[in-house]
Amino acid sequence: MPRSLAIKPFLRVLAGERQSVPPIWLMRQAGRYLPEYRAIREKASGFLDLCFDPQRAAEITLQPIRRFGFDAAILFSDILVVPHALGQRVTFEEGEGPRLDALKEPGALKSLARELDHSRLESVYETIIRVKQNLPPAVAFLGFCGAPWTLATYMIAGVGTTDQLPARLFAYRFPDAFAELIDILVEASASYLTRQFAAGVDAVQIFDTWAGVLPADEFRKWCIEPCARIVAKVRERVREAPIIGFPRGAGTELGCYLQGVAVNAVGIDWTAELAFVRDRIQTLRPVQGNLDPLALLVGGAALDRSIDGILQAFSRGPLIFNLGHGVLPDTPIAHVEQLVARVRGQPAHA
Amino acid sequence: MPRSLAIKPFLRVLAGERQSVPPIWLMRQAGRYLPEYRAIREKASGFLDLCFDPQRAAEITLQPIRRFGFDAAILFSDILVVPHALGQRVTFEEGEGPRLDALKEPGALKSLARELDHSRLESVYETIIRVKQNLPPAVAFLGFCGAPWTLATYMIAGVGTTDQLPARLFAYRFPDAFAELIDILVEASASYLTRQFAAGVDAVQIFDTWAGVLPADEFRKWCIEPCARIVAKVRERVREAPIIGFPRGAGTELGCYLQGVAVNAVGIDWTAELAFVRDRIQTLRPVQGNLDPLALLVGGAALDRSIDGILQAFSRGPLIFNLGHGVLPDTPIAHVEQLVARVRGQPAHA
Repeated sequence: MPRSLAIKPFLRVLAGERQSVPPIWLMRQAGRYLPEYRAIREKASGFLDLCFDPQRAAEITLQPIRRFGFDAAILFSDILVVPHALGQRVTFEEGEGPRLDALKEPGALKSLARELDHSRLESVYETIIRVKQNLPPAVAFLGFCGAPWTLATYMIAGVGTTDQLPARLFAYRFPDAFAELIDILVEASASYLTRQFAAGVDAVQIFDTWAGVLPADEFRKWCIEPCARIVAKVRERVREAPIIGFPRGAGTELGCYLQGVAVNAVGIDWTAELAFVRDRIQTLRPVQGNLDPLALLVGGAALDRSIDGILQAFSRGPLIFNLGHGVLPDTPIAHVEQLVARVRGQPAHA
Repeated sequence: MPRSLAIKPFLRVLAGERQSVPPIWLMRQAGRYLPEYRAIREKASGFLDLCFDPQRAAEITLQPIRRFGFDAAILFSDILVVPHALGQRVTFEEGEGPRLDALKEPGALKSLARELDHSRLESVYETIIRVKQNLPPAVAFLGFCGAPWTLATYMIAGVGTTDQLPARLFAYRFPDAFAELIDILVEASASYLTRQFAAGVDAVQIFDTWAGVLPADEFRKWCIEPCARIVAKVRERVREAPIIGFPRGAGTELGCYLQGVAVNAVGIDWTAELAFVRDRIQTLRPVQGNLDPLALLVGGAALDRSIDGILQAFSRGPLIFNLGHGVLPDTPIAHVEQLVARVRGQPAHA
């Protein structure tokens, strides 16, 4: 066992070991709910500039580790740096989310590079190097990318959507062009994750945030198969690379996903049925999740009940404690402290 | 067997019988994709006025039956007539969806009546009587209501939301007041459905459109238990009332739902895994669904493939063919014709 694995509980779980105290980190743990993040954010000219500023991105990555002592740090970045490094124009409008030059029809794919321009991502790799130098030895370092389907929903719509209709429509109308886009994103994502490992991350997570809107056949074609190819390609270059998959909203299809995608662990969203995940998913692979972000925002007894339900349901197998989706911006710091203390069985601050 | 059951294939499926040609109807089959609907809609002063106009609401209900010969007609109305008849102010802004006086905190519940004011729903019952007189004998007539959880999401937010956050937050913060609201809605819904049966519907559907956002424990408390109580209460007054449940997005929890709620059949959304539904749900109860509304909008070979996949997956048990969600407004008429012909094994129009 490599030395880093031996002392990082997070990596031990990814290797399949149950830990008596589950390691914990939170999706979007570096973000707007933290005053120290907001202080940096206010001074930055734009969100993407922040992602591409190694000094500040590294600082933001480390903030929640210092404050809460989480077991994993996740790179502060955004999934849309990949379309950016494929030549698509990406901006973030203040308070309005991302804006991209939408790929409205198959011809628009010509504007995309076939290979990732790593020079546009050097600052991300530089951030990884900086974080790595400053991370406590027991804390794992997690890189990430968006899954091809989820990236495609933004690249085709040009904005975030609630129903992912433009991409779903494109995929039905132009299946060959859509498959071509997915192929480009598979190559780019594998290449990007490989470079993240080379720069120093211990593991990566593939976020398929919008996997849940796909009908079963499309779920196989646009979520399972592309993610399986990314995992295989990364492992060709980084032997036994630890990878977490997060096909949000996959529901009953979590089992198919794990049959198809050789991830080390799988993220579970907050709507999943605990008994189903315990009996049919945790028996296949370690699970990560799945606290309702709203329970964390509300705090109090509702939070305690939700935490205890998850700890109890998943006590028999390997678990990484996390939310079922990102931290909400209005979440009080004290509730995160309450969560960490309860998961670790420590008395909460009075 | 009652005479109406014998000649209505839709009701035979609800009674548990497999039909060699599955009966078909579509959620939102009366709506904006039909030119004859738009012609009536343009002349109406508002959407709710149309719901409360028996002559026009009956005409709209019958339009898709005349055009496509569906096996069931569904009452043209809206789930928000129940909050309206509980005294909450409900309006529909043109192109913006519903607006209600939001129930922002527990004290606001005082403004609601404890019993449904049926005088505010007389025109709905009048619509049912009119439709009933004009429906072909083989066509079943379906009433409906929104499930308590789904109604509560609108009543608390005051608008439609993509994440149902206000109601989810209210339920965590004020569980007793939320339970009180759900209790009011259980009584009101049971009373409303009973009156729909008295006026002439053959069956009813309970739409829990937002069931899928709930964590497992909340799904049990706010979806399964209230719907179970509605079904029991309706059946106390209408013996063996045929009832369809549609907990959209329930995923793996469809099984728990059917264990808890004694519906005759269950609606399946388009994201469900066909093999799971076939092996674990259709073995418990007849299923209704689950074509992707976008496949219907796109038409062509993608539509045929999607139809065939559903027909094949569910061929061994009782099936009512439907969409997994409502007809999209831009859906071409020709695609609906293609769908009906293919499900019935007839050659499509040239």
